[in-house]
Amino acid sequence: MNAEIIAVGSELLLGQITNTNAQFLSQQLAEIGINVYYHTVVGDNSSRVLDVVKEAEKRADLLIFTGGLGPTKDDLTKEAIGSHIGRPLVYHEEALKSIEHYFVKTKRPMTPNNKKQALVMEGSTVFPNDHGMAPGMMVKGTKNFYMLLPGPPREMQPMFTNYAKPALLNILEKVEKIESRVLRFFGIGESALETEVEDLLLAQQNPTIAPLAGDGEVTLRITAKHESEATALRMIQEVEEEILRRVGDYFYGYNDTTIVRELADRLVESSQTVAAAESLTGGLFQSEMTAVPGASQFFNGGIVCYSNRAKEKLVQVKTETLADHGAISEACAIELAENVRQLLDADFGISFTGVAGPDAAEGHPSGTVWIGLSSKLTGSKAFKLQLAGSRAGIRKRSVKYGCHYLLVELANNK
Amino acid sequence: MNAEIIAVGSELLLGQITNTNAQFLSQQLAEIGINVYYHTVVGDNSSRVLDVVKEAEKRADLLIFTGGLGPTKDDLTKEAIGSHIGRPLVYHEEALKSIEHYFVKTKRPMTPNNKKQALVMEGSTVFPNDHGMAPGMMVKGTKNFYMLLPGPPREMQPMFTNYAKPALLNILEKVEKIESRVLRFFGIGESALETEVEDLLLAQQNPTIAPLAGDGEVTLRITAKHESEATALRMIQEVEEEILRRVGDYFYGYNDTTIVRELADRLVESSQTVAAAESLTGGLFQSEMTAVPGASQFFNGGIVCYSNRAKEKLVQVKTETLADHGAISEACAIELAENVRQLLDADFGISFTGVAGPDAAEGHPSGTVWIGLSSKLTGSKAFKLQLAGSRAGIRKRSVKYGCHYLLVELANNK
Repeated sequence: MNAEIIAVGSELLLGQITNTNAQFLSQQLAEIGINVYYHTVVGDNSSRVLDVVKEAEKRADLLIFTGGLGPTKDDLTKEAIGSHIGRPLVYHEEALKSIEHYFVKTKRPMTPNNKKQALVMEGSTVFPNDHGMAPGMMVKGTKNFYMLLPGPPREMQPMFTNYAKPALLNILEKVEKIESRVLRFFGIGESALETEVEDLLLAQQNPTIAPLAGDGEVTLRITAKHESEATALRMIQEVEEEILRRVGDYFYGYNDTTIVRELADRLVESSQTVAAAESLTGGLFQSEMTAVPGASQFFNGGIVCYSNRAKEKLVQVKTETLADHGAISEACAIELAENVRQLLDADFGISFTGVAGPDAAEGHPSGTVWIGLSSKLTGSKAFKLQLAGSRAGIRKRSVKYGCHYLLVELANNK
Repeated sequence: MNAEIIAVGSELLLGQITNTNAQFLSQQLAEIGINVYYHTVVGDNSSRVLDVVKEAEKRADLLIFTGGLGPTKDDLTKEAIGSHIGRPLVYHEEALKSIEHYFVKTKRPMTPNNKKQALVMEGSTVFPNDHGMAPGMMVKGTKNFYMLLPGPPREMQPMFTNYAKPALLNILEKVEKIESRVLRFFGIGESALETEVEDLLLAQQNPTIAPLAGDGEVTLRITAKHESEATALRMIQEVEEEILRRVGDYFYGYNDTTIVRELADRLVESSQTVAAAESLTGGLFQSEMTAVPGASQFFNGGIVCYSNRAKEKLVQVKTETLADHGAISEACAIELAENVRQLLDADFGISFTGVAGPDAAEGHPSGTVWIGLSSKLTGSKAFKLQLAGSRAGIRKRSVKYGCHYLLVELANNK
């Protein structure tokens, strides 16, 4: 079975929003073995929607529409499809009740056009909308399946996961399972990593191995197809083991994890805590650590010492250190990390000092970064980086390097 | 003239990346009056690319392709289009030199497949790639224009802006100018704002007014069409004045600005500084302030006092305050703001304390937030919010509210 994802909405063609729905659905469909050959975006215009539908019917078994199920006149997806495949629209009782309930709950008057959202194509499987008003639906025409989903991602994503995906699995007769796993690496460049696994990349067929680089990280996606899920997973496992045998030192996690999340997990597992003093990263490390729920278990707090005054006053960096070595120095990085660790009685102290750019500072070019690491058990050290790129990129990658060094420290002292 | 944007790349169909290029190009084309009626995404497959091209030729004057210009065998866009419209590929001398130069500069050996990137369709206008190797190009066929751009946004965006857009303006005969301006609002809900300007929304034709809500903000995009740019701008100005007369209190800036950027600009203009103490936001406010180049002019530093220990030890919040009122209280918010302002000798101190969730804390539900504001001139106060949504959403909106309160304070004391 193969699918085409069709987004209906002029706001996409005007560039007001990005079509993240296509990405989400593509990932989800790949997981259950449905190939996606095309994405299409079309405006809120009946005749153009119909043209797109006719084209898609020729090249896809399943047409998945997002958007155009709302209350306004612009919302025309189900009207267009329903009339095209000869399915009249009928009121869906449950959906109507749930819309009325929504207005009672929010104490707002229900305008008549909202009732339109409860209309569904006759004979379709209806998907409840747990995060909005317009239900989704799926129906079989003479040759194709038509699935209609709402446009807002916060409504569409849970509807697809909870209702539409199970409905699809029901109609898939013999499923060739596609299993996929992403290995995430940090601290090694894309070309260096590719060189290490070049023979595997050249020989790949099933499983396939796809490298992707971005934000200072490299990932390898291993994808295996087999009728048996267990076999597909075993095929992935074998390739993974061979890859990690070669470049395992740079591996930090699977799939959608982040290096911050992995660091948080390792700290919680070992019941250790960290405190931070940030100059060039200006709070970004701490902001990412505290973005993890339950951060108080592993993060004690810290200081954003963007100015030298803050370094001296809040982190007690010695005036001589700043005078003799400058703020962008090994000595300063180490003092910051040690002092903030002690101030907040943490197991680890980490510090970031350097030049985020765009301008040079203290005679150092943009991208010069010192990361200090202080451990209650093993003492202190500092790492120097010379990064390229934008201010935002330098800050982001500095934070990732900090997480990487701390992860290595944790692994070495297990 | 109307255009279709065609992305070539299997990674899009697998959901590995989002098609942000389509959004960028749509915005850019709207600005110069080129209508976009369709976006299409197709995989790295010659025959499917050709099918898409043939369909697009029927419905669009200008076909803009992104992706598939790289060195590998998968990269087939110019090969497919060139053979379809009968334009052989020839080496572009400058592009070849620039690719060779790139390898010399980075001291890496140049593999033969990289030479392929210097091939262009005979007779095309070539766009230099200032941020990568593959040049872009545009050529006229019998009926349509074909524009080929690289896939990575960091290469494509500057190439479009600097070379492709001027080339398009050259071939547009009579341009009806489309001018557009986005007004950004914070502190007012979408429906409340729409109610205030409902009559304008209903009466809109030219200029059009399009509301959009997201991330706790509401924007209104005003778009005017006219042959004269000056007239289009004047039409926008008139609508803008009427809108701001009604809801100007919530207006904070134009187009792509952010509330953080506006706050930074207002602080720089008035030569004032801020320091921060963050609990629930965990460094996010400071991270966003320091993301602005030149942050040392207006940001003195601060403390991430995620734990009560850090509030006491680093920000000198009184033990009694925490015992009597708890950390999530007006009293604590005010002490944090005052103390951090004094510690860092800033004009303003701002503090964030509350429950980011998902769990409740100190008997307060997730989303309870106190923001403290301390001014050297006008004393201290605190604002209470009750926000809904995810941990990330609550943290983000808290930071925006903080910026909003500080902007109001700055405006009132000008």
